[in-house]
Amino acid sequence: MSDVSAVKALVFDVFGTVVDWRSSLIVDFTKWGAARGINADWTALVDAWRGVYMASMDEVRKHPERGYVILDALHRRSLEKLVAQFDIKGLTEADLDYLTRGWHRLNPWPDSVSGLTRLKTKFIISPLSNGNVALLTNMAKFAGLPWDLVLSAELFEHYKPDSETYLGAAKLLCLPPEQVMMVAAHNNDLKAAQKLGLKTAFVARPTEYGPHQKYDFEAKGDWDIVAKDFTGIADRMGC
Amino acid sequence: MSDVSAVKALVFDVFGTVVDWRSSLIVDFTKWGAARGINADWTALVDAWRGVYMASMDEVRKHPERGYVILDALHRRSLEKLVAQFDIKGLTEADLDYLTRGWHRLNPWPDSVSGLTRLKTKFIISPLSNGNVALLTNMAKFAGLPWDLVLSAELFEHYKPDSETYLGAAKLLCLPPEQVMMVAAHNNDLKAAQKLGLKTAFVARPTEYGPHQKYDFEAKGDWDIVAKDFTGIADRMGC
Repeated sequence: MSDVSAVKALVFDVFGTVVDWRSSLIVDFTKWGAARGINADWTALVDAWRGVYMASMDEVRKHPERGYVILDALHRRSLEKLVAQFDIKGLTEADLDYLTRGWHRLNPWPDSVSGLTRLKTKFIISPLSNGNVALLTNMAKFAGLPWDLVLSAELFEHYKPDSETYLGAAKLLCLPPEQVMMVAAHNNDLKAAQKLGLKTAFVARPTEYGPHQKYDFEAKGDWDIVAKDFTGIADRMGC
Repeated sequence: MSDVSAVKALVFDVFGTVVDWRSSLIVDFTKWGAARGINADWTALVDAWRGVYMASMDEVRKHPERGYVILDALHRRSLEKLVAQFDIKGLTEADLDYLTRGWHRLNPWPDSVSGLTRLKTKFIISPLSNGNVALLTNMAKFAGLPWDLVLSAELFEHYKPDSETYLGAAKLLCLPPEQVMMVAAHNNDLKAAQKLGLKTAFVARPTEYGPHQKYDFEAKGDWDIVAKDFTGIADRMGC
């Protein structure tokens, strides 16, 4: 069993790991679309939107000379393209804003709040997400996530899995990487964190992508903790 | 009466405004010194330490080519000089670290936690302090301060009252300055914030400097709110 006794802070991937973005957005938009009289396949829109997520961050990574662009702005750009592509009619500026801010209104997985609350009694807990600071702050208030602070890719002007994010988080916490544990439902996120000396915890979220889930059904690496959910992480961390 | 209805976030000065640094440090060090067998005038040390605070930040401001230095490091440098000056004997490396981290272990004023808890129900609440992120995070856990996020001068690599701090906070929150209210017990902090378009709230903390308090007994500006304590701010903000 891996030694995690030196860990002082746990930092969490958020989309998929802490919150169920897909179901949240589909339910929110379907209800809103019906009330607003906007006809669209909201499920397809949500899946397509998340489908271009990685590519939109790659664009920022490839063009540092254009400056860092926060996730809210990437979401908005992608949405405008998808609205045209899906031929969704009648959306105003305020509607586009409402949809983009849907990413601030995501529901936690059933174990997230209770697990975080337990972990907070012994450890510093923070998101370490590609979401921007305002997005993560608004989401925490919406979902009741009891973060001690909000660490975001925005603070380092680099998206995960760039090393600046993991090392930047440890630096702001004034902790060596081995005293920080990255928690994620995504093996690639943990792989990047582990390479830099952080401790790692994996939770499976096998319904994150609904019927389109292709990977991350299970741990694919030598992670310090592998748990079913945040309850399992809190148990393992002695909270 | 000033219109504060557009405010979405309140950001707080911390040392003196939220926590009683002077009494906290004097009590902590006196108790620790007795147990550790270190003889010193801890009250004089604390007053002298705070006395060089402004000058230590001015050094960073004057020498941007040396890079930003976090407050923990400035505190440590100042302490080493004062220990020599006060001729305090027998301090180990661990002792100097303990004393420096005294600034992470500060008690809130009696109204702080209840006032913040009320304000948090309607607004985003965050420190906006010259303390570094780890210092503010550790202090929040020690003192039970229910911040939504932790904004610090460290994130902007500028100390207050540099404009980068106030505008940087608004930018990270994705809010225009007029939707952010600066709360402080120091008129000069509010003056800098108001000049940049932030709303302002003053609370008097007339015992912050003990018998050495020279100013900030009352509001000296046209602040949007002037309150006796955080209870008064929560009342005024309709929480």
